[in-house]
Amino acid sequence: MARRPSARQAKLKERKAVLAEELKPVRAGLSGGQFKPLTDEDADSIIETAYKILEEVGFADATDHCIEMCLAVGAEYGDDGRLRFPRQVIFETLGKCQRKLTLHGQDPRHDLNLSGSRVHFSTAGAAVMVVDPLSGEYRESTNQDLYDMARIANRCEHLHMFQRTCVARDIPDNREMDINTTYSCIMGTSKHIGCAWTDSSHLAECFEMLHLVAGGEEAWRARPFMSISCCHVVPPMKFTEDALNCLKLAVEGGMPVLLLSAGQSGATAPACLAGAVAEAWAECLGGLAYINAIKPGAPAILGTWPFVSDLRTGAMSGGSPEQALLSAACAQIGNLFDLPTGTACGMTDSKLPDYQAGAERAYTLNCAATSGANIVYESAGMYASLLGTCPESLLLDNDTLGAVMRITRGIEVNEKTLSLSDIKDICFGNKGHYLASAQTLEVMQTEYLYPEFGDRLSPDDWNDAQQPDPVRAAIQKARKVLINDYPDHVSDEIDCKIRECFPIKLSREAIGRGP
Amino acid sequence: MARRPSARQAKLKERKAVLAEELKPVRAGLSGGQFKPLTDEDADSIIETAYKILEEVGFADATDHCIEMCLAVGAEYGDDGRLRFPRQVIFETLGKCQRKLTLHGQDPRHDLNLSGSRVHFSTAGAAVMVVDPLSGEYRESTNQDLYDMARIANRCEHLHMFQRTCVARDIPDNREMDINTTYSCIMGTSKHIGCAWTDSSHLAECFEMLHLVAGGEEAWRARPFMSISCCHVVPPMKFTEDALNCLKLAVEGGMPVLLLSAGQSGATAPACLAGAVAEAWAECLGGLAYINAIKPGAPAILGTWPFVSDLRTGAMSGGSPEQALLSAACAQIGNLFDLPTGTACGMTDSKLPDYQAGAERAYTLNCAATSGANIVYESAGMYASLLGTCPESLLLDNDTLGAVMRITRGIEVNEKTLSLSDIKDICFGNKGHYLASAQTLEVMQTEYLYPEFGDRLSPDDWNDAQQPDPVRAAIQKARKVLINDYPDHVSDEIDCKIRECFPIKLSREAIGRGP
Repeated sequence: MARRPSARQAKLKERKAVLAEELKPVRAGLSGGQFKPLTDEDADSIIETAYKILEEVGFADATDHCIEMCLAVGAEYGDDGRLRFPRQVIFETLGKCQRKLTLHGQDPRHDLNLSGSRVHFSTAGAAVMVVDPLSGEYRESTNQDLYDMARIANRCEHLHMFQRTCVARDIPDNREMDINTTYSCIMGTSKHIGCAWTDSSHLAECFEMLHLVAGGEEAWRARPFMSISCCHVVPPMKFTEDALNCLKLAVEGGMPVLLLSAGQSGATAPACLAGAVAEAWAECLGGLAYINAIKPGAPAILGTWPFVSDLRTGAMSGGSPEQALLSAACAQIGNLFDLPTGTACGMTDSKLPDYQAGAERAYTLNCAATSGANIVYESAGMYASLLGTCPESLLLDNDTLGAVMRITRGIEVNEKTLSLSDIKDICFGNKGHYLASAQTLEVMQTEYLYPEFGDRLSPDDWNDAQQPDPVRAAIQKARKVLINDYPDHVSDEIDCKIRECFPIKLSREAIGRGP
Repeated sequence: MARRPSARQAKLKERKAVLAEELKPVRAGLSGGQFKPLTDEDADSIIETAYKILEEVGFADATDHCIEMCLAVGAEYGDDGRLRFPRQVIFETLGKCQRKLTLHGQDPRHDLNLSGSRVHFSTAGAAVMVVDPLSGEYRESTNQDLYDMARIANRCEHLHMFQRTCVARDIPDNREMDINTTYSCIMGTSKHIGCAWTDSSHLAECFEMLHLVAGGEEAWRARPFMSISCCHVVPPMKFTEDALNCLKLAVEGGMPVLLLSAGQSGATAPACLAGAVAEAWAECLGGLAYINAIKPGAPAILGTWPFVSDLRTGAMSGGSPEQALLSAACAQIGNLFDLPTGTACGMTDSKLPDYQAGAERAYTLNCAATSGANIVYESAGMYASLLGTCPESLLLDNDTLGAVMRITRGIEVNEKTLSLSDIKDICFGNKGHYLASAQTLEVMQTEYLYPEFGDRLSPDDWNDAQQPDPVRAAIQKARKVLINDYPDHVSDEIDCKIRECFPIKLSREAIGRGP
């Protein structure tokens, strides 16, 4: 049943893959940090303000468990019902929390090392609609969409993990929706998965599925391939019971948590960008203190995701330049703390893949990546801020992600790349150009990244070729992937066991397996 | 004839404009430098290599005048016909050259201060075709296109100067073409202009036109509102006679020079990015040594414009991530030298304003601007790398330029923006959100930039509004500008004098004046 290659085949495949990876102009986890929107002094002022928010403002609506655990490590519960964290509690949290986090894939080749300022790209959600990239028609998103997007993301070189992109709105029951969301992601991609659950009891059930897939609880705990995206706060500075319950369960179950603070500047966070960054960091550090009170070293990603409001309407503007700054500043501070940090960029306010979408994705992504965000969530496929998503756009956006990663890689400077001897050879030899130089041929594949859909034809050739459109090309490729690619990293045996235990909506045929 | 407002009116207008400028979220000349693609050590290695190229390789094909002037300041002319610059010559050049350059507009409100890492955006060219943004049809560019693009650029808030975008191919005689190019730019915009001449004798003639417009030679020399874009080298490391003659004349005539090194990595510059940056800086520093030998302190912009070759075809790829890195690295080094530095970004390999165009423009612009390039040339309107230009796209790209300038401005951090008291007010007052806070209303216009064409409607509202398309909106606005906007900063009197002396092709009617 299981399609396992022989050990020798696996070894050969692995070696080949590793070698190819080394030769590529970009790969997962290149180091950012070249873009620093804040001076050191300004970053310190923001951190100081975050501490003050934790000490002086604190969180409303903590659960009994949260209060109990946090008081035990030095937090204070006020008469006003707010849970405050003196900075000593945060310092101690920072002393015992997990750094240099690895996010595991079902396939170890997709493991992500979130140390330092290493950059990775992920999808995220949760869109409630799917948009047709040509007609701009929006419709409700489904479970099938989610499985399909996982499969497409699985094929996008520059999408390093898959956080669930859309809500399975065709499954009205929340429990069944959560279970099927988990299942569709697991089956669609062997990369690390981010997911969310509407109720902690659903998460508890899904742990059984994760254990099944991993081959037992011990195997799951050794390589947890799924993290929980958990909005532990409703900004400003208010915990939520459901989310804290999920957080507790996840920590106890060995699942990495994305501590998500998704304020909106001018709405649920201050309108001044500096204040929005301070609030986001206060909210995430509070969450970090709680989970480390439960279990020191619990794996966590600091999800400082302050969003932007268009203050004329109150609507979110994911494609604004202010979004780029907020996210980059959060990542910069994350690097100062040396904590695994994720933020959200790559969104657009446009409704389909047009000029505006390209521009907004690119400048926000470029800022987040070069600032050294360990994970840039929402990096592909999202439209109308986060209301809509588009499967085909994952492929199109993959080009942009690759380009931004190439920028993040930067310029290697050494005797060879400085090329003085090559310059002398060309000039003294009166050769006029470097086209035939050995160095040019040697670095052609390693120094330069070539887009998959981006068109570089001359106007004449482009017109002769009937004006090839990258959007249509991406649509064609998506179609091919969906017809041909049914990932088989989960064996038939395991799939059948899952189906025995859970109300799985996708048929065996729908995942490319026999009945 | 001249439409001069009274002194009081002018004063009022000026005060109002200055005030408005101060309130805007972005303006010309905000400081970049937050993005540093090179470590300090790597930047030093590149500079050291540039010195070695100047000392050990030197330039071929220097003119007699160039050799004479440069030998006088310590350069060496080798038996191999190459003009070499020992580093001491460069150090002395750096000691006497002009820094903190001001580029003047015909209208002083458009003066640009190129000191430090202040960032400005400019068009440039020289496209030989104009593209229709909807049909993708390419046709030969004309003198009228140039005048029209100058008029549109004159209305784009985030285009701070206008370098000629396209070649007037409908004027077959080179002398007449150069004269009319100069004239069309002067009449179309009161911003600083960049131009180029095919022969130094044409430049000599055009100086007379510039003196006429300025109100005499002295007035011109006090506020030279036009600079010459001069490819003084054909990379690698070869001077060209025509260009050096233009350079000499421009320097003597008080015209700022853009010392332009436009190598192409892998073709006329090393394929390794580090080497391409070193070659570009060597070439520009050599030009700087020459003009400072002619006239110490001659105003110059160091035009380090290394381009990228797609090594699969040899064609230029202006929209590549490597382009973003090359330009940003050049700007970073320019800031280390504290020299006025220009580079080229914002180009795209796409043929019209689509997703690819938006993405490529945005990530290249974002890198160049945040690296602190004093002028980012080619920042708007260019397609198919630099083969085509599009008048309507200037308006569309203006949104992207504004966004990138907002990112360049960064985040102000002070007690007020850190918002601690606002956060306390909202949290303790249990208000839930910041929408009605005084600070939110106060910073709504100053902290946030709103796009002119970028659409932020929800999918429902967007569909109800018949899917408004930013490209079509830009086309409509361009039409309005071209019908209504005939800049009158040059008086009828001067215009008539110019027409007496020069073979002007645009009729009086074509520039919105009586016959």
